[in-house]
Amino acid sequence: MGKDKKLTTRSDDYNQWYLDVIQAARLADHSPVKGCMVIRPNGYALWEKIQRALDDMFKETGHVNAYFPLLIPESFLKKEAEHVEGFAPECAVVTHGGGQKLEEPLVIRPTSETIIWAMYRKWIESHRDLPILINQWANVVRWEMRTRLFLRTTEFLWQEGHTAHATSEESEEETLRMLEVYRRFAEDFMAMPVIPGIKTEREKFAGAVRTYSIEGMMQDGRALQAGTSHNLGQNFAKAFDVTFQDEQGQRQFVWATSWGVSTRLIGAIIMTHSDDKGLILPPRLAATKATIIPIMGKKADPEVVLGEARKLAEESGLGREIDIDDRANVSPGWKYNDWEQRGVPLRIELGPRDIENKQAVIVRRDTGEKQFVPRDKLPAVLKETLEQMQKDMFARALAHREENTYPVEDEAEFRAKLEDPGGFLMAHHCGERECEERIQAETKATIRCIPLDAKQENGTCPFCGKASDKRVIFAKAY
Amino acid sequence: MGKDKKLTTRSDDYNQWYLDVIQAARLADHSPVKGCMVIRPNGYALWEKIQRALDDMFKETGHVNAYFPLLIPESFLKKEAEHVEGFAPECAVVTHGGGQKLEEPLVIRPTSETIIWAMYRKWIESHRDLPILINQWANVVRWEMRTRLFLRTTEFLWQEGHTAHATSEESEEETLRMLEVYRRFAEDFMAMPVIPGIKTEREKFAGAVRTYSIEGMMQDGRALQAGTSHNLGQNFAKAFDVTFQDEQGQRQFVWATSWGVSTRLIGAIIMTHSDDKGLILPPRLAATKATIIPIMGKKADPEVVLGEARKLAEESGLGREIDIDDRANVSPGWKYNDWEQRGVPLRIELGPRDIENKQAVIVRRDTGEKQFVPRDKLPAVLKETLEQMQKDMFARALAHREENTYPVEDEAEFRAKLEDPGGFLMAHHCGERECEERIQAETKATIRCIPLDAKQENGTCPFCGKASDKRVIFAKAY
Repeated sequence: MGKDKKLTTRSDDYNQWYLDVIQAARLADHSPVKGCMVIRPNGYALWEKIQRALDDMFKETGHVNAYFPLLIPESFLKKEAEHVEGFAPECAVVTHGGGQKLEEPLVIRPTSETIIWAMYRKWIESHRDLPILINQWANVVRWEMRTRLFLRTTEFLWQEGHTAHATSEESEEETLRMLEVYRRFAEDFMAMPVIPGIKTEREKFAGAVRTYSIEGMMQDGRALQAGTSHNLGQNFAKAFDVTFQDEQGQRQFVWATSWGVSTRLIGAIIMTHSDDKGLILPPRLAATKATIIPIMGKKADPEVVLGEARKLAEESGLGREIDIDDRANVSPGWKYNDWEQRGVPLRIELGPRDIENKQAVIVRRDTGEKQFVPRDKLPAVLKETLEQMQKDMFARALAHREENTYPVEDEAEFRAKLEDPGGFLMAHHCGERECEERIQAETKATIRCIPLDAKQENGTCPFCGKASDKRVIFAKAY
Repeated sequence: MGKDKKLTTRSDDYNQWYLDVIQAARLADHSPVKGCMVIRPNGYALWEKIQRALDDMFKETGHVNAYFPLLIPESFLKKEAEHVEGFAPECAVVTHGGGQKLEEPLVIRPTSETIIWAMYRKWIESHRDLPILINQWANVVRWEMRTRLFLRTTEFLWQEGHTAHATSEESEEETLRMLEVYRRFAEDFMAMPVIPGIKTEREKFAGAVRTYSIEGMMQDGRALQAGTSHNLGQNFAKAFDVTFQDEQGQRQFVWATSWGVSTRLIGAIIMTHSDDKGLILPPRLAATKATIIPIMGKKADPEVVLGEARKLAEESGLGREIDIDDRANVSPGWKYNDWEQRGVPLRIELGPRDIENKQAVIVRRDTGEKQFVPRDKLPAVLKETLEQMQKDMFARALAHREENTYPVEDEAEFRAKLEDPGGFLMAHHCGERECEERIQAETKATIRCIPLDAKQENGTCPFCGKASDKRVIFAKAY
C-alpha cells in the first residue's frame, strides 16, 4: 500500500486492512529484529496519552511509580513453580556480559513479579510497611512465534502494578479496584466497551490464585483481552519468603496482586473504531484533536488565509492539540485523505469564502458529518463535537458488541454460530479443563471470561453435557 | 546506617555519605542483579519531574518521541568501526530466545544509533522527509565493572535524541541547541551550574565527529559529566547507507546528531546540594514541595489540629505537592529528621498556638531558616520562599565552583593543586592524545572539556611544554 493508495478494505482482508491502517497512519513499523516493532511518533503520541491518563488514575488510587531491573537471574524465575512453567519457554536469555560468559544466565523480564518480590523481602518487616502500592512503566520481552504489530510483539511496552497487603481481603479488593480502573479507562478514554470477568483456571496468569480481565470485541467479532488483574494470594510471598509482623506480633506471609495493560491497547483502539479510510481516534486520546486545512482559492492571498488559520487555532481553545496543515506542495483533497488516514477527530476547512462569512467548516472523522460554524461559536462547538464524537464512538462499539453477542445452547449451534456470524457466544460450561481444551482444539474458541455480572442459571455444557450454573463468554480471540 | 541514626558526614567519608543520603531518602536500592539498581518511589518521583521538564523542552524545540527495539543484531553494531570498538566490550548479549539458540546473537542496546539509523534508511527518501527530530525515553545496558547508585549502573534510564538533517550546518546547530537545552535544564531546574564545552578527540563519543558536554562540579571538587550532545556527521548515514535526494535531485548522505541525559542526573543533584543531614532537593524538581507537621500540644484536640492542617494544605496553592505527616506513632522531632533526610524543601509546623495566632512556621531545608507567617499570607510566602531557595541553591553551588576553579601553570603546581584543594584546574594543553593519556595515568585527572567560551591565550602545556592557544578544564571525575 503506497501513501496515495487506498487501504485494503475490511471485507476484502481484515488482517491486511489492520496493517494498512497502521502504515497509513504511521503508527508503527516492522523492525529488522525478529518480532520487535518500532513505535513511530504518531503511535507513541497515542501511547503517551494512554500513559498519562492511566498514570493519573493510578495516582488517584494511591499508587506510586518505581523501577526494577530489566534482567532477572534465571534462578528467581524458578522459585514459583507455575510461574516458571508459564514463562520460561518465552524468555530471552543473556548468557554473556562485558565479553565474559556469565556464571548464571539472566533472563530479560517477561514480567517482574520475581525481581520485585525479591526486593519486597528487604523492604517489608512490619504491618506498618504495608500496603505497598507500586506501579512500573517498562518494556518486557516474551519470545513469540507469531507476532502482529501492537497485538503481539516480542518486546512490548506496558505498566505492571505490584502490590503487597496484610490481608487476603485487601488483596482481593485491590485486584478488583484495578480491574475497575481498567474498565473505566477502556470505556471512558478508548470508547471501547468491555466485559469485566474472571478467567478460568486454565487461562489464569502463571502464579495467580485468580485472574480477572476486561474483554473487548473487535469489529470482526473476535475478542481482545485488554487488561488483566491478578490476585496472587501468598504464592510469591511464599516463594520469596516475604513475611511481616502483624499487630499481634505474629509473622504472616504477605498477600499480593499484579495488574497490567500494554501497547496492545493501541491495537484494540485501531480494531474497535477504524474504517476503510483509516484510523479513527477517540477524541480523548488524540494528541491532535483537530487540523485546520487552509483552502487557497484562485484569488485568495495565501498569507491572509494562513493568518486567519493561525488566528483560528489560537482562538480554538485546543492549545497545542490543534494543527495547521500549511504544506504548499499538496492539494486540500490530498490533505483530507492524509488526516483521515491518521485518524484525527476533526478537520476544519477554512477558505476565502469562510473567512468572508466569518465561519469555518468542521468535519467529523467518524461520520463525515459537516457543520458550518460561526467563528465566535467555534471553541464551544469544537468542545461539544469532540465530546459527542467520543460518546457516539462508544455507543457504536457497544451496539456492535450487543448485535454480535447471543446465547447458544448446544454443540451444533455453537459450531455453526462461531463461524457465522462469530462474536461472543454466551454458553454454559462445565468448568472442566479437559472440556475447555477440547473445545479450543476443535473450534479455536476459548473462554474469554466468566462475566462478573453473570446470572445464576441452571444449564448444561453444550459439549460434555455436565451441569453448569452460569454462562461464560466463548469467542475466538486475538 | 539505620533509619533513626545519623548519616556518615561528608568530611568523614564522602562516598559513604553519598550512599547514606540515598538510603535515608529511600531513593534507590541495590538489587540482587549485579550492577543494577532499583529506583524506589522517592527516586522515581524525582526522575518523573526531570522527565516532564525535559520532555516539555524537547517538544518546544520541535522534537517528538518514538520507541525503537531493545535488542540489536550484533552485526549492526559492527557497521560503524569506532562505534563497535567503543561499545562491544560493554554489551550484554542475548544468545537464546524461546528455548532456542539464536542464529545471530542480539545485544541489549547500550545506545540506539545503529537500530535507529537502520530504520531511518527506510524512512528517508527525499529532502522533504528531513529533518527528523526524534527522542526516545528508554533503558540501556552497559556492562560496568565498578558501579555506583545512579552515577554508574549496568542498566540505567535515559533519553536519547537522534536527529537527521540535510546539511552539516543544520546538524551542528541541532547539536548546540540541545547542549543549550541541557545547560538550561541543569541550571534552571537542578540549580547546578555547568560548563558547556567540547570534548577532546580522546573523550568523544564512539562514532561522533564532535562531542559536547556540560560539566558540573560536585561538593568534593570532582567533575560530573551531566549530559552530552554529539555531532555524528555522516558517519552513521554512511555505515547504514542512508541518503536523500536533495532539491537539485542529487543523492546525498544524511547528517546526524544524538544527545542524551540519564538517571545519573539524580546522582548529580544529590552531590551538588545535599548536606550532612541528608538530601536537599531543588524546589522545581521536588514532587513534594512542603510537608505540614501537625504539633499536638498536651491540651490540643488532635482532630482540630489535623483539620487545620488540611485546611492549610488546601489553601497553600501547592495542590498535590504538599503533604501532611499525620503519623500518630512518631514524634514531631522524629518527623523533622525524616523529612530533612528526604530533602523536601519546606517544612511547615502547625501547633495549637500557631492556630490561635493564625500563623504557621515555615522552615527551609537548605538553610534551616525559620519564618513565622500569617496564615493569609502563606500561599504568597510559600511561593516566594521556594523561588528564593531555588536561586540560593544555584548561587551557593556557583560560588563553590568558582572558589574551586583556578589556573595552574606548571606540572608541579598541577600535581599539588589536584590533590589539595582539588576542583577544576584551568590549564593549557597541547591537544595530543598521548600527553592526555599520560596525565590521566599519572594523576587520574582528565580533560573534562574545552569550554565553549575559552579565550584565546598563548601558553604551553604544563606536561610536555608544547604550545597551546587556550586553557582546558582538568579534573578528577565521576
